Amino acid sequence: MPLTDPDRLFPPEPRLRDLARGLYESVQDLPIISPHGHTDPSWYARNTRFPNPAELFVVPDHYVFRMLVSQGITLDELGVPRADGSRSDTDPRAIWHRFAQNFHLFRGTPSAMWLDHSFEHVFGLDTLLTAATAEAYYDHIDAKLAEPEFLPRALYERFNIEVIATTDGALDDLAHHKAVAESGWTGRVVPTYRPDAVVDPEQDGFTANVTRLGEMTGEDTQTWAGYLAAHRARRAHFIAHGATASDHGHPIAHTADLNTQDAERLFNKALKGEATPDEADLFRGQMLTEMARMSLDDGLVMQIHPGSRRNHSAPVFDAYGRDKGFDIPGRTDYVGALKPMLDAVGMEPGLRVILFTLDETAYGRELAPLAGAYPALKLGPPWWFFDSYEGIKRFREATTETCGFYNTVGFNDDTRAFCSIPARHDVARRSDCAYLAGLVATGRLRQAEAEELAHDLSYRLAKEAYRL
Amino acid sequence: MPLTDPDRLFPPEPRLRDLARGLYESVQDLPIISPHGHTDPSWYARNTRFPNPAELFVVPDHYVFRMLVSQGITLDELGVPRADGSRSDTDPRAIWHRFAQNFHLFRGTPSAMWLDHSFEHVFGLDTLLTAATAEAYYDHIDAKLAEPEFLPRALYERFNIEVIATTDGALDDLAHHKAVAESGWTGRVVPTYRPDAVVDPEQDGFTANVTRLGEMTGEDTQTWAGYLAAHRARRAHFIAHGATASDHGHPIAHTADLNTQDAERLFNKALKGEATPDEADLFRGQMLTEMARMSLDDGLVMQIHPGSRRNHSAPVFDAYGRDKGFDIPGRTDYVGALKPMLDAVGMEPGLRVILFTLDETAYGRELAPLAGAYPALKLGPPWWFFDSYEGIKRFREATTETCGFYNTVGFNDDTRAFCSIPARHDVARRSDCAYLAGLVATGRLRQAEAEELAHDLSYRLAKEAYRL
Amino acid sequence: MPLTDPDRLFPPEPRLRDLARGLYESVQDLPIISPHGHTDPSWYARNTRFPNPAELFVVPDHYVFRMLVSQGITLDELGVPRADGSRSDTDPRAIWHRFAQNFHLFRGTPSAMWLDHSFEHVFGLDTLLTAATAEAYYDHIDAKLAEPEFLPRALYERFNIEVIATTDGALDDLAHHKAVAESGWTGRVVPTYRPDAVVDPEQDGFTANVTRLGEMTGEDTQTWAGYLAAHRARRAHFIAHGATASDHGHPIAHTADLNTQDAERLFNKALKGEATPDEADLFRGQMLTEMARMSLDDGLVMQIHPGSRRNHSAPVFDAYGRDKGFDIPGRTDYVGALKPMLDAVGMEPGLRVILFTLDETAYGRELAPLAGAYPALKLGPPWWFFDSYEGIKRFREATTETCGFYNTVGFNDDTRAFCSIPARHDVARRSDCAYLAGLVATGRLRQAEAEELAHDLSYRLAKEAYRL
Repeated sequence: MPLTDPDRLFPPEPRLRDLARGLYESVQDLPIISPHGHTDPSWYARNTRFPNPAELFVVPDHYVFRMLVSQGITLDELGVPRADGSRSDTDPRAIWHRFAQNFHLFRGTPSAMWLDHSFEHVFGLDTLLTAATAEAYYDHIDAKLAEPEFLPRALYERFNIEVIATTDGALDDLAHHKAVAESGWTGRVVPTYRPDAVVDPEQDGFTANVTRLGEMTGEDTQTWAGYLAAHRARRAHFIAHGATASDHGHPIAHTADLNTQDAERLFNKALKGEATPDEADLFRGQMLTEMARMSLDDGLVMQIHPGSRRNHSAPVFDAYGRDKGFDIPGRTDYVGALKPMLDAVGMEPGLRVILFTLDETAYGRELAPLAGAYPALKLGPPWWFFDSYEGIKRFREATTETCGFYNTVGFNDDTRAFCSIPARHDVARRSDCAYLAGLVATGRLRQAEAEELAHDLSYRLAKEAYRL
Repeated sequence: MPLTDPDRLFPPEPRLRDLARGLYESVQDLPIISPHGHTDPSWYARNTRFPNPAELFVVPDHYVFRMLVSQGITLDELGVPRADGSRSDTDPRAIWHRFAQNFHLFRGTPSAMWLDHSFEHVFGLDTLLTAATAEAYYDHIDAKLAEPEFLPRALYERFNIEVIATTDGALDDLAHHKAVAESGWTGRVVPTYRPDAVVDPEQDGFTANVTRLGEMTGEDTQTWAGYLAAHRARRAHFIAHGATASDHGHPIAHTADLNTQDAERLFNKALKGEATPDEADLFRGQMLTEMARMSLDDGLVMQIHPGSRRNHSAPVFDAYGRDKGFDIPGRTDYVGALKPMLDAVGMEPGLRVILFTLDETAYGRELAPLAGAYPALKLGPPWWFFDSYEGIKRFREATTETCGFYNTVGFNDDTRAFCSIPARHDVARRSDCAYLAGLVATGRLRQAEAEELAHDLSYRLAKEAYRL
Repeated sequence: MPLTDPDRLFPPEPRLRDLARGLYESVQDLPIISPHGHTDPSWYARNTRFPNPAELFVVPDHYVFRMLVSQGITLDELGVPRADGSRSDTDPRAIWHRFAQNFHLFRGTPSAMWLDHSFEHVFGLDTLLTAATAEAYYDHIDAKLAEPEFLPRALYERFNIEVIATTDGALDDLAHHKAVAESGWTGRVVPTYRPDAVVDPEQDGFTANVTRLGEMTGEDTQTWAGYLAAHRARRAHFIAHGATASDHGHPIAHTADLNTQDAERLFNKALKGEATPDEADLFRGQMLTEMARMSLDDGLVMQIHPGSRRNHSAPVFDAYGRDKGFDIPGRTDYVGALKPMLDAVGMEPGLRVILFTLDETAYGRELAPLAGAYPALKLGPPWWFFDSYEGIKRFREATTETCGFYNTVGFNDDTRAFCSIPARHDVARRSDCAYLAGLVATGRLRQAEAEELAHDLSYRLAKEAYRL
């Protein structure tokens, strides 16, 4: 018996299921466009084997280890590195056993579907992961990882990826991207300009990072003008290495449009570490508008990912640092927050700003009305906790009636879990086809329109929206 | 092939579909009660032809032109008038072609369903609007508009409208309503008292408007008492011309219940243009409570439409003025905001206040609990962006379990797009019948109850709630 | 014809319906675990008959009388007691007739389903309640209430209740619980520690209550240390009488973690009645963290029920007092609000805190992400207005994908309407089975997993989560 149901996520009513399956079959083999994610560019550059099953599936995946932690297993028991770089001497097999024993915790979650998909379609397994099968699973996957077909580049090809974007700090030298490009390998791995560390005065090391930005670009980043010029230079460097987009992760969506004098003053304060929390927020907001203006010139597509209250648990952050599963969404306003930026550049048809949210209440109330009016705005797909069947359903149901399909940008997997990439795109394609089938069966869409849309949502829109 | 599926919006599962279709067939031919909308009373008074297809379907409909604008077409290219009254010399055929070329943008939106319904059921067209059919469409519709059967009164009758309410400023002389009443025509077109321009200190011309209100009524509107008396006089004038309701569009739902002295002081400040934003808000809130008190005396049904952050784009507002598709919803509190008014008059069984929202999160959390307790409150149907199949579904699912059906008021189309009126009521009737069918099929409602409710939601509740 | 459809709440599509029915049949006869509710312990202690149908079904049930009030019937006409203890001399038969005449108002609400279920399955009625059947209904139910099979203990047994928790003030002497325990009856009725009256400085009589708390425990509750010790003593007393949980009803979810000095100062201010609203809120928040710390020691499961804005109507509160159907939910933040408590004790695997909400937007955005990370947190079932088919559906759809099933705690009925208890558990079991069936039919869950989960959600999780 296969681990995954061939008709999974299709509506159970027979006519609807047939409609959904038909649409899905027309798009299931399309190449994957992955315009936003967090895979490690060194994988493609070095092309060495993944160490072991625990390091592949458990240790780096905060979706996975947070669920285990929520039931009382400690991060140490799962081998998650501590903030000081140390690490419990947990055996990878022991980690794998803990994971397997608790695999039932994932019932009904997208993680279960992604993992089962990877086990079956990447590794050829066909029994359920349990305490009883844990050992055989480990051995099987570990053996496969030693084969050339399971090296990163081979998997990239097997996954039918046409292009994949990584996310890279403004100070990254992009050596891995350079290495990939010069290697003669045909895979396309492009960087994304993520300047949080040099635009957020509240990040540790902000001042030093700005200094380093100056060194890398030869600009005087102690002045506002030089600081902006340095950003332009780094963006050009990223573009030269294939980047088509920037990405901005802020706690809230505030934007600002200060005059030069005020911006200068604020920048100087931030640089001295004297910005209050409100001023830090204002500076981040000003930088969103500055980045939008740069995008008008250099064409980078701008992504805004606001609304995560990072590192919610102080003790966990102190002991283990960032990205440990304790980033919790919060209410996020867009209507007031984006107005300064939109008044400045929102009507520019040449600008493309893609909005994401962790606050689903904004879909119908704020995001779809905004994207259904401003030429510069488009909506990104459901993000993070909402990258799931129900999440995609709610997104489509809440946005389509107001801004249609063509103010959205297809799917992106946004993952660092390499083997989940085909699974995630598959879930998105199935979920979208299920939604389209529902529209056809209720007379809201014609069959031919649904077919075109299935292709658009699976492939074309992502490629065009991100200028890939 | 028809443009619209005869079974559209019915659930695909065969038993459910039969149930929904059966309910729908029992209400599809009921007359239309249109208790809240924005059609132009001069249409019924003058009964002259609509100028051309672009002027009928594109130029005045912000649902339509905002979608086109969101994809980079300019308001000038669509012939939308500028704030200074000027207008690009765009040819109506060129506008129509732009619209037709981009008709795919509306896939999955209620606009597509309303437009297809109008094309087919009002104009007898049976091919899809595309670039290829644009010219033939234009010619066909333009020719029809010249026929007597397509004059406003003939359409009113063909649409089976029993009564339609317009929305009219407090300073409107209601000449068109008078003309209709005196014309001998049997159509019933009633005004609605919309006093925003004389209760909102932040609207341009507020002070002049209050002065004009005094001139029209012979009251001294420079005093608080005279100002209130003038409102009473205008309401009486509206009632004499058939009005049964007032309507209030405020950015938020704040109400207030100041003592006379404080209200007087606030009014004087507002009149001098010295009210701060908070004071302007307080004054608007006070006026909601005053209007509710007047309703207790004169019986006008009070509608509150809060939550739209109007004219979001400053450049668009400066160039083109109001109602250009850039009104964006925002979070709206009701629980705290309505308390002052409800403490004053909420338990009055003779008062009727109908609440609307653009913040769907309020349905289950605030609005249904409030309407399920206060005798004075009822819930209006899904509004604006939520006047759609999914919007109606979410509304019923989120409110029925808490406040039942009988604290809701049936449908209103709220439109200035005349030809969409039958389509909108049809969508509402189908959507409600689909919902009722679901309740019957899951044992939550008996068939006979569903039949009665289908009639109530399509006809009786609107008529009774608005005292029409 | 039965009043209730045997297949109610199962999805209409035949395959899904069969799946849901199969799951339901495996759990429908499981004993009821009722870990949180508001039945009166004196019922079980005294075991005397319920006075009459109106006193059983209408007068004490705010779900029922609020709907009648919302349509213009007065609380006096329904025999609801006034704040001063007086009561209109309304005849119970007259109350019953008003209720029967207006029973159609409940169409589509859970109240209708619970009432029909009680009428049919508890009292053996099989005709619909209407004005025409009101008299016969009254006579029938009244006669049944006189039979021994309809005394509280007999109903408890017939309802197949394994254990039921009541909710009891910190100052309650638990005499009824003692009486039940000593009576030799096998029913298990346990108290729950609800200290709102001695932790909320804004409740009438707070200072006197704290003094009384001192008298009952022999601790000096005029000091912060003595006050905490008194809580510990009362908790121990409750535990000795069977309690396994505490419960906390706060307007918002704020928590605090002050140092001892600051807490002491705040406590002294509160005791003198000098706490500002913000300080009262801070004190309540501090006490949540203190209670969590005590739970770590004594093992009581902690329930937090925030978000109800109690007694919304001032005139109704003045005339009739608390719990009169005018408690309205409001927006409730959890992410920031719970942080102080979670930083203090959130990572303790021995602590169990169960979160409830009246703000459904928090499910996916805040509560599931929090419960899916912190070992101390679990999610309570949909509460109050959301204890319904649609409420349960939205809860599962919004939380399962993020925190799975095993960070939730099964169902609790939370009711004072005794006869509705089997109906409410039945609705929950059916709704959960319908949800599980949907997961199976869409390949998101295996049949064997669904069977295990049906049992877990109906029985095991509640029992284990509440340590019963």
